[in-house]
Amino acid sequence: MSREQVAKDYEEYKEKGRIWGQVPPERITKIKFPRADAATIKRYLALPDMTTTVSDLLDSYGIRGVVAASYIKPLIAGKRIAGTAVTLRSMPERKTPTQGSIDKDPIKMSTREIYYLSEPGDVLVADFGGNLDVSNMGGQSALVGKTVGFAGAIVNGAVRDVPAIREVDFPVWSAGVTPITGKFRMEATEINGPVRLHDIVVYPGDLIVADDSGICVVPADRIASLIDEAESIGGAEDKMRELIVSKAPISELRPLFRKRYD
Amino acid sequence: MSREQVAKDYEEYKEKGRIWGQVPPERITKIKFPRADAATIKRYLALPDMTTTVSDLLDSYGIRGVVAASYIKPLIAGKRIAGTAVTLRSMPERKTPTQGSIDKDPIKMSTREIYYLSEPGDVLVADFGGNLDVSNMGGQSALVGKTVGFAGAIVNGAVRDVPAIREVDFPVWSAGVTPITGKFRMEATEINGPVRLHDIVVYPGDLIVADDSGICVVPADRIASLIDEAESIGGAEDKMRELIVSKAPISELRPLFRKRYD
Amino acid sequence: MSREQVAKDYEEYKEKGRIWGQVPPERITKIKFPRADAATIKRYLALPDMTTTVSDLLDSYGIRGVVAASYIKPLIAGKRIAGTAVTLRSMPERKTPTQGSIDKDPIKMSTREIYYLSEPGDVLVADFGGNLDVSNMGGQSALVGKTVGFAGAIVNGAVRDVPAIREVDFPVWSAGVTPITGKFRMEATEINGPVRLHDIVVYPGDLIVADDSGICVVPADRIASLIDEAESIGGAEDKMRELIVSKAPISELRPLFRKRYD
Amino acid sequence: MSREQVAKDYEEYKEKGRIWGQVPPERITKIKFPRADAATIKRYLALPDMTTTVSDLLDSYGIRGVVAASYIKPLIAGKRIAGTAVTLRSMPERKTPTQGSIDKDPIKMSTREIYYLSEPGDVLVADFGGNLDVSNMGGQSALVGKTVGFAGAIVNGAVRDVPAIREVDFPVWSAGVTPITGKFRMEATEINGPVRLHDIVVYPGDLIVADDSGICVVPADRIASLIDEAESIGGAEDKMRELIVSKAPISELRPLFRKRYD
Amino acid sequence: MSREQVAKDYEEYKEKGRIWGQVPPERITKIKFPRADAATIKRYLALPDMTTTVSDLLDSYGIRGVVAASYIKPLIAGKRIAGTAVTLRSMPERKTPTQGSIDKDPIKMSTREIYYLSEPGDVLVADFGGNLDVSNMGGQSALVGKTVGFAGAIVNGAVRDVPAIREVDFPVWSAGVTPITGKFRMEATEINGPVRLHDIVVYPGDLIVADDSGICVVPADRIASLIDEAESIGGAEDKMRELIVSKAPISELRPLFRKRYD
Amino acid sequence: MSREQVAKDYEEYKEKGRIWGQVPPERITKIKFPRADAATIKRYLALPDMTTTVSDLLDSYGIRGVVAASYIKPLIAGKRIAGTAVTLRSMPERKTPTQGSIDKDPIKMSTREIYYLSEPGDVLVADFGGNLDVSNMGGQSALVGKTVGFAGAIVNGAVRDVPAIREVDFPVWSAGVTPITGKFRMEATEINGPVRLHDIVVYPGDLIVADDSGICVVPADRIASLIDEAESIGGAEDKMRELIVSKAPISELRPLFRKRYD
Repeated sequence: MSREQVAKDYEEYKEKGRIWGQVPPERITKIKFPRADAATIKRYLALPDMTTTVSDLLDSYGIRGVVAASYIKPLIAGKRIAGTAVTLRSMPERKTPTQGSIDKDPIKMSTREIYYLSEPGDVLVADFGGNLDVSNMGGQSALVGKTVGFAGAIVNGAVRDVPAIREVDFPVWSAGVTPITGKFRMEATEINGPVRLHDIVVYPGDLIVADDSGICVVPADRIASLIDEAESIGGAEDKMRELIVSKAPISELRPLFRKRYD
Repeated sequence: MSREQVAKDYEEYKEKGRIWGQVPPERITKIKFPRADAATIKRYLALPDMTTTVSDLLDSYGIRGVVAASYIKPLIAGKRIAGTAVTLRSMPERKTPTQGSIDKDPIKMSTREIYYLSEPGDVLVADFGGNLDVSNMGGQSALVGKTVGFAGAIVNGAVRDVPAIREVDFPVWSAGVTPITGKFRMEATEINGPVRLHDIVVYPGDLIVADDSGICVVPADRIASLIDEAESIGGAEDKMRELIVSKAPISELRPLFRKRYD
Repeated sequence: MSREQVAKDYEEYKEKGRIWGQVPPERITKIKFPRADAATIKRYLALPDMTTTVSDLLDSYGIRGVVAASYIKPLIAGKRIAGTAVTLRSMPERKTPTQGSIDKDPIKMSTREIYYLSEPGDVLVADFGGNLDVSNMGGQSALVGKTVGFAGAIVNGAVRDVPAIREVDFPVWSAGVTPITGKFRMEATEINGPVRLHDIVVYPGDLIVADDSGICVVPADRIASLIDEAESIGGAEDKMRELIVSKAPISELRPLFRKRYD
Repeated sequence: MSREQVAKDYEEYKEKGRIWGQVPPERITKIKFPRADAATIKRYLALPDMTTTVSDLLDSYGIRGVVAASYIKPLIAGKRIAGTAVTLRSMPERKTPTQGSIDKDPIKMSTREIYYLSEPGDVLVADFGGNLDVSNMGGQSALVGKTVGFAGAIVNGAVRDVPAIREVDFPVWSAGVTPITGKFRMEATEINGPVRLHDIVVYPGDLIVADDSGICVVPADRIASLIDEAESIGGAEDKMRELIVSKAPISELRPLFRKRYD
Repeated sequence: MSREQVAKDYEEYKEKGRIWGQVPPERITKIKFPRADAATIKRYLALPDMTTTVSDLLDSYGIRGVVAASYIKPLIAGKRIAGTAVTLRSMPERKTPTQGSIDKDPIKMSTREIYYLSEPGDVLVADFGGNLDVSNMGGQSALVGKTVGFAGAIVNGAVRDVPAIREVDFPVWSAGVTPITGKFRMEATEINGPVRLHDIVVYPGDLIVADDSGICVVPADRIASLIDEAESIGGAEDKMRELIVSKAPISELRPLFRKRYD
Repeated sequence: MSREQVAKDYEEYKEKGRIWGQVPPERITKIKFPRADAATIKRYLALPDMTTTVSDLLDSYGIRGVVAASYIKPLIAGKRIAGTAVTLRSMPERKTPTQGSIDKDPIKMSTREIYYLSEPGDVLVADFGGNLDVSNMGGQSALVGKTVGFAGAIVNGAVRDVPAIREVDFPVWSAGVTPITGKFRMEATEINGPVRLHDIVVYPGDLIVADDSGICVVPADRIASLIDEAESIGGAEDKMRELIVSKAPISELRPLFRKRYD
């Protein structure tokens, strides 16, 4: 996307009152880009073993796009989300927090900027290199996210205000949990560039699919085809479940089992 | 146990329709072996601080047989299980998943094989070296486990389909949680040989006792004597609790406290 | 505090029946020291984003006093506590547990000693160097803590009897969870000296403030001033929340946002 | 390989005085199997960037067969080895060392057994699950290994007697280094079965190739073809180096660079 | 720096034959920027306890700019370097290596691009998120680096061809060591943007100072003033050493000791 | 040891000019205590596989007293030391370094205090909880240690000035290496109390025995008897080595092998 286009989009959003203004415009790599439509997202959310099914299909495409909840965990158990990724990459600040607060440095971290730049249904993917001590977002950020209609947030780092996030009921997956603010400790380096989640990459416009097992990242150009394939598997799975519960003999189960992976 | 006996048992189970057939027979080390009876298991489950009591007695025998839930955690909080261990050891596959799926390699991982070879009340102990990325069992496996009457599963590795496992209400302890399948990533190397749980060994026929604090492994030849000793401690413990709650003076509490560890 | 004063206090407490007697008196560094009063603690507990607010103010003082729940986690989700720290430091025992039990060595670990030496509302801070295998306290200890009126416990190490601790409803934060006893594995080295929580220090008399996000340690001489400042921030925060929920335009939100950090 | 053949081989080796007798025969899965010939091994050792070249070719076959020296490190810097894998898998002992030594239990760990069962030029691959505390082999074991002509040892665990191993000049790669014996702490579970090195599998008969960068495992059926391919790349690499040193312009370097990966 | 300037610089360098062409121009954030001059670098290298002295002065400025060699280690012991940082940030590739090599995808990783864009005496700072498995640079890259006159490289990730790097005698600090290529596993995302080393940030133009203890990053605007201060401390340090060696009494040593930190 | 005795010793040492004065006297738990004599230490240093032999004997006593070099590593390869432990325990400072340096706080860390309080041949055991970022001692400290005749230092934490320590040739084992000072980051909490090395305890007066494999801690009351036993094993070991090198048949080796562990 050309820098000219982003500059134009930025001006448009500014006029519409959608620019918070904490992140300098040159750190915003993309503003407008295609999103998965609501109908497609609904189909994803209807998959019975959502991340399992998506992960298996990414495997079959030779794509590395899954992060285990062993590393990035749900804050609220039982949540299931699907939505378009918008991304925020942060870097450590150079000054110590004490020095920064003495010098009255401006705050350079911000999830707010990205919320207002995005669309309802989006998923915030924030990357601070897996750091477990410093918060990337707190209760107020979650409240804004919820209010503007975000589906949730995936944080390769830590978050704070866990009780408030739970109260707002905003689905968050994070590597850690902390009371320590990111203010004076991190700065927003790029909005809507590529970011890292544990050991995979996320681009803005990818589809994020997450539940208690972990997070799948579907590349934008696979979103449509993957769900088609996923739905075609469902029938066999349901049949298998029924047979298992009815204590069908192995001879009946085995042929079905094979079908799935050929 | 002689290989001849296993071969004979295998044929018998095959006729009975209890062989799934994914794991080659030479990788099955034992099929039939003695189990703790239901009455004994009931007594274990009746212990008030189950894993605590069992752990203390293993200590007193000079046996290393306990894994902290710091390492292998319950998927569903509040579960308590006791049952005979059946074991499954897996090794990493040599081919990358992509290469394997292009070559149409047969799937060599299987929890299914072991479920049908085992008895109601058994506990699956699956060892994949503590790996946190790749799933050893998912929702369908849990459904089979539940249906055939397993007490639960302990996984030195990761599992997937967390929502489905919770729905089936199958008690699972695991080192991690992931959407990524083990198919094309691991293969079943041995059924009912010795396996490793974090830093201890489990043999088939051992008694597994697990709750939110962790997992205890009682060697087969100690199952009967340990529960006898455990029950004899219970009284003093109950008395202690009553005294504490009634705010008894230290002078009354102290003699009881000592009794337990002499 | 002079050793003479401690010796005198010890005798006084002994007469009052408050000495359990497992920890030798020379390992008790302080018995009496000033505590935050109940009214102050109530004000802390009334803070909406408790650990967040306290952490930010510690930051502004240039004080390192916060541990992320990434490292020391709540055993019971949703708990919020504030109370004066009493501290217990333990060291590994030199003998193996087997050798110790053969030799009938006396048990040298004890949370009990400190409970009876302390005041209602206190928070136990137990340090065993972050070890994840060995328990620092169990269900009975939690029951005593609850009965004598402790607000909760923070353990830089592991605890056991998780089901019992949950039943007693005693708020505990710990690095790990295990069935393995600390008896014959650790000994109480010091009561009410400085201890370490992950990478910060706690002194007896500090105020412990903990919730699902983590643990804050307010130095004794800052307890009063910090809560004064904390309460003065609350209003702006509430106003911000209302504006967010009412979907106020950015132009209205931004000035408020800035106010907090100048 | 049939159990009968192993039993026969065992008897043959016993007669030849090549059975140490510490590991029961039923734990020996293979005795005789094909080895890479000396000429082939010489060709591997002649590769300029040995593990790099082998790793790239394993990649091109879709085979996961490399462990970074980040995890399993050379004890003596600068060593380069290639040789046929013989494998030893160990499990933790159930008794504490103290209990075992009181009971005068027989020692069940042994690298010795495998040295005498193997051939000159072989590489011992010992797997104890990456444990960093307990030794799998020490100075005497290294001395035997050196004397019988082993090329070296790769240990997924720790070793001891580092000064003695260095003096003997026996090339060892290990996950850790420790004075603590494995006697009474581990037992030899299987000789010449599949073992795990960090996150890959090794079978007896594979070719082990190791230097300061790490360890490559070439499957037995690829040993011959891989070295053929590897040698055909060498020329371009040498040419590249020359051009770089002579400060050739990019226009001359680039075409050569591309050639390698198409 | 404006994108226009970079585009202009790119064209200039292209004409001069300094563009390798593997990294698309829009991923190059800066080409020309000010460097520390050779005389200043010489003064840094003349500091007796180089990283110690620089670290202490960064501390006194309230700047977080040091990474312990506990995390990023020297490949060749005893090396000491100082030079201007040029930076390379990489992200994981989305395709599995197998899939990428089947699809004949172009290689997108490159240290080469940056070498030819830089100046003699520069230090490559490559960031791949601390990954320990995949190589960021190998022997050929080190050879180019050496040939074009780089002072060394700091890699927040792994490197390969350790023997070749040692032979070329190119000073490298890295988080890990591996034979596994980054080709098809990582792609160069940005040249000369901010990167992360463990938990600090590096900007192109900063001064990198590294020895066996670790790595210091001096912000560009502090390079001149820091070395002035550093040199003024040296005398007292030397005097202290002499006194210690001559076994001067404490009364003589103590006043000198204090001087440094007031 | 009574506080009165320590106070008296302190005064005596003060008069002798052996008090540096940075650590308040109440933090010094012991000054005079019995040491292993030079002859005994010489015998320890004469053991061929020093830490191996000592570790095995500690095992036989049921004593946990060994730390693997996997965790605490030699800075200079090939060093072997034995000497009496003097201990230094430090806690994190509460203020950030920036705040501390603005407030001109006195420095509270000190290895110097302990060097002058100790005897030639002693080994410094410094405990900072295994922290990898912050230095416990640097080149000047090593120089003092060397000058006053210390045998070496074991640091459960990090050290700095690696080049200077190597030049001074002072044997140091540490968990990490860093340029970052401990000044304003740690304070000396206790001299000559019990400290922790990884997962074991060290008391002043214990014998420290360390080489490339790791560190053994012999309790003071076992120093004499352990070396007696150790020397009696040596003969069999030497005989074994000779037989191995002379390629003696297994039948000759086996009886000797057994002898050691009965």
